Amino acid sequence: MFEAHYGVPMAGAVLNAVNFRLNAQTIAFLLGHSEANAIMVDQEFFSLAEEALKIWADNSKGNFKAPLLIVIADKSCDSKSLQYALSKGAIEYDKFLETGNPNFAWKRPQDEWQSIALGYTSGTTASPKGVVLHHRGAYLMALNSPIVWGMGEGAVYLWTLPMFHCNGWCFTWSIAAICGTSICLRKVTAKAVYSAIANLGVTHFCAAPVVLNTIVNAPKEDTILPLPRVVHVMTAGAAPPPSVLAAMSQRGFRVTHTYGLSETYGPSTICVWKPEWDLLPSETQARLNARQGVPYVGLESLDVVDTQHNKPVPADGTTVGEIVFRGNVVMKGYLRNPKANAEAFANGYFHSGDLAVKHSDGYIEIKDRSKDIIISGGENISSVEVENILYHHPAILEVSVVARPDEHWGESPCAFVTLKSGYTADNPDQRRQLAEDIMKFSRSKMPAYWVPKSVVFGPLPKTATGKIQKHLLRDKAKEMCEYQAYDTLK
Amino acid sequence: MFEAHYGVPMAGAVLNAVNFRLNAQTIAFLLGHSEANAIMVDQEFFSLAEEALKIWADNSKGNFKAPLLIVIADKSCDSKSLQYALSKGAIEYDKFLETGNPNFAWKRPQDEWQSIALGYTSGTTASPKGVVLHHRGAYLMALNSPIVWGMGEGAVYLWTLPMFHCNGWCFTWSIAAICGTSICLRKVTAKAVYSAIANLGVTHFCAAPVVLNTIVNAPKEDTILPLPRVVHVMTAGAAPPPSVLAAMSQRGFRVTHTYGLSETYGPSTICVWKPEWDLLPSETQARLNARQGVPYVGLESLDVVDTQHNKPVPADGTTVGEIVFRGNVVMKGYLRNPKANAEAFANGYFHSGDLAVKHSDGYIEIKDRSKDIIISGGENISSVEVENILYHHPAILEVSVVARPDEHWGESPCAFVTLKSGYTADNPDQRRQLAEDIMKFSRSKMPAYWVPKSVVFGPLPKTATGKIQKHLLRDKAKEMCEYQAYDTLK
Repeated sequence: MFEAHYGVPMAGAVLNAVNFRLNAQTIAFLLGHSEANAIMVDQEFFSLAEEALKIWADNSKGNFKAPLLIVIADKSCDSKSLQYALSKGAIEYDKFLETGNPNFAWKRPQDEWQSIALGYTSGTTASPKGVVLHHRGAYLMALNSPIVWGMGEGAVYLWTLPMFHCNGWCFTWSIAAICGTSICLRKVTAKAVYSAIANLGVTHFCAAPVVLNTIVNAPKEDTILPLPRVVHVMTAGAAPPPSVLAAMSQRGFRVTHTYGLSETYGPSTICVWKPEWDLLPSETQARLNARQGVPYVGLESLDVVDTQHNKPVPADGTTVGEIVFRGNVVMKGYLRNPKANAEAFANGYFHSGDLAVKHSDGYIEIKDRSKDIIISGGENISSVEVENILYHHPAILEVSVVARPDEHWGESPCAFVTLKSGYTADNPDQRRQLAEDIMKFSRSKMPAYWVPKSVVFGPLPKTATGKIQKHLLRDKAKEMCEYQAYDTLK
Repeated sequence: MFEAHYGVPMAGAVLNAVNFRLNAQTIAFLLGHSEANAIMVDQEFFSLAEEALKIWADNSKGNFKAPLLIVIADKSCDSKSLQYALSKGAIEYDKFLETGNPNFAWKRPQDEWQSIALGYTSGTTASPKGVVLHHRGAYLMALNSPIVWGMGEGAVYLWTLPMFHCNGWCFTWSIAAICGTSICLRKVTAKAVYSAIANLGVTHFCAAPVVLNTIVNAPKEDTILPLPRVVHVMTAGAAPPPSVLAAMSQRGFRVTHTYGLSETYGPSTICVWKPEWDLLPSETQARLNARQGVPYVGLESLDVVDTQHNKPVPADGTTVGEIVFRGNVVMKGYLRNPKANAEAFANGYFHSGDLAVKHSDGYIEIKDRSKDIIISGGENISSVEVENILYHHPAILEVSVVARPDEHWGESPCAFVTLKSGYTADNPDQRRQLAEDIMKFSRSKMPAYWVPKSVVFGPLPKTATGKIQKHLLRDKAKEMCEYQAYDTLK
């Protein structure tokens, strides 16, 4: 994956890094939508790729041209999966490299707005949207992150953030820009993280809040404390709770909170820590550090606007508006999606969909996450996509999926369901059975992390015009206790 | 000067920072050549500006439009010079600012190749050449320096490098990019440098080798040692001698050696310190650290080429070629100088004029500085310009000026002279008298730092085709003892 971040653009191609936690159905959609010419897949995930290819071929109705299939061998995997892949006509990555021309001239982009990468994001609409990034933005973001994070020559970067996640926030390219060292893990565990810090000189890593949880809650025998040096951690999306931040700090990690989207090459705003915050109580520190902050130096314009009147909200810390971006580190657009592009770029800004206030010191703070997104384990889940699948369940009349706070994953999907006539959820037994059936159905149709962890039955609250009042559902979801798998809404 | 680096481009204008050590004649040339519309001058240098304006007006033969004249008041200066400036029609800087429109909209460049700054360099030809820099290059260089030097948020930068010197190598803009702090000194002294480090938290500064000399040779009472923290020092041009590097290191300074030209926005190559050098003897370290190194991340191409055959020299550490640059951090060109531009950009590269070898690890190393440049106290002196002036001396038939190693200034000009008939330098008394007369003559015609510190009499060695063999003169200059003001060439 790391090499592909160089080799693919240098060959003049566009890289589409795919989340291996997606199901075959979704991957088939991505491959078809992007018209993939070549697929490189780790042997561990070969069957998933094979299944996706089959679905893609089936969907293409005879109009299918099989892509070049390359399998990446890994000694730590069962040799059977490699043998299987080779038997299915895949070429091994190292063998594939041998077919290359050693005198091949690097194809530099003819135009710096040329596409370098494509990444599918779970948006607020039913189908994943293909975020197209250009060379110019990737270059500038690669230079920006080391500057805002103070990464110098000699930095040792640990890959806890997946490279498929928005090209690892462009750190795939930053590490080369600073002549740093990349440490890759086959699997992210607390033990592996602590071990890399202790033995491989790790100075920096990026992590979703769920990874921070794992680190602070690791059993003592997996940790190596005190840390041999301050380790800088960049986190984004949902701000970690105060308790986690405090625990990280006690262990010697310095957590920097950032915010951005795939559409902005990953984080493009940062909550710059002010020296005067050092003296505040840890709860206040956590509250301030949870702000989305100030724009990266490479982001030309960031604002919070009243979209109805298309003007910036006052910097009063209370007036809510939408976060909008403009500049070099904003995507080219969504692939083959003029409607989404027209909406996203209305009035010359990229609209994040996130609602925020602006403080008097210029820091922005998200007040209401883009309403249809659930961030679980650092990955975006489109509640609309989950809903669309759930609507195929025979018992479901109406469904609304919202984020439920989750101690481990940050958020998890919670489904609110109205049943079709003939189905009842009047007693706990019926509710348990239906909830289990809905989850089982979900597991067969969507990635595991999309599956609702709880199902609530009852009539959905609606506005006068018939719109579901999701904020009431979110309030209910918040009240539910941690391991409650089903409930009713009165 | 610092504010002008922002205000002038934001007003849509081009900044030309002028070295106040130049004489009025040269400044008059620059002002006329650049067609300056406004002049901002510190009250200390008002008389110099006035004199230059007068010469410019005289040279213009009635075609002169007086520029807006702004005087910058400084409390540490004699109040008389301010009163004098105001009496001559200059407006005080703060008063000038008050005339501004607080609602003036920042004029962003319409095109990023638009000019941001102009800086005159003593080139290898008789007239100073106006190096035109563009917004794009300045932006990228501003982001590059913090990356290659590991400057993060919170860096405190001391201005020992003059801002008029190639826009302070773009650190004027880097400091804003990293939200750093600038410390300015009215006058650079060892005491002021140590005091700023001790009292103002200085973490980084750039300095010509002469400043390093001043720092290591400061009297004990001016120093504050040990340093409260490692202080990073970037130096460029002539590599500091091993003794100075070792002394800097002992005091806690970490010296990074870089190389570049005004035409490349200041340093654009860096001698990256390799960890394995730590264990080498200090003489070897100094020799390796004196290399010109590797390109900055923002420089697309750096090479050493055989200009005759227009191909790169082998990386063998012995084959000499010319250092050439290509990329974003290369100037637009010389202002109104098509001939110089055609020469400088021959074959699609910027030609530095510096001769170097390429080592097997990719580091380049200058073997013969661009033959006509003398670097004294960090400032370039064109030997040709000095020669052109000396040719006006009544006794001089032929003159060649070369660099002489100088313990304090790095290099100083040394003039080799053949006398006109009627003049003799046969005995020491005649030589002393003539040398003194030539120096006196020079002081009246050129900036003090251009004045030859030594004059050597005798027939100039020439090639068969009549070209002066400067390398033989340089050998002779090297042999001369430190305070020798005159000699003969046999």
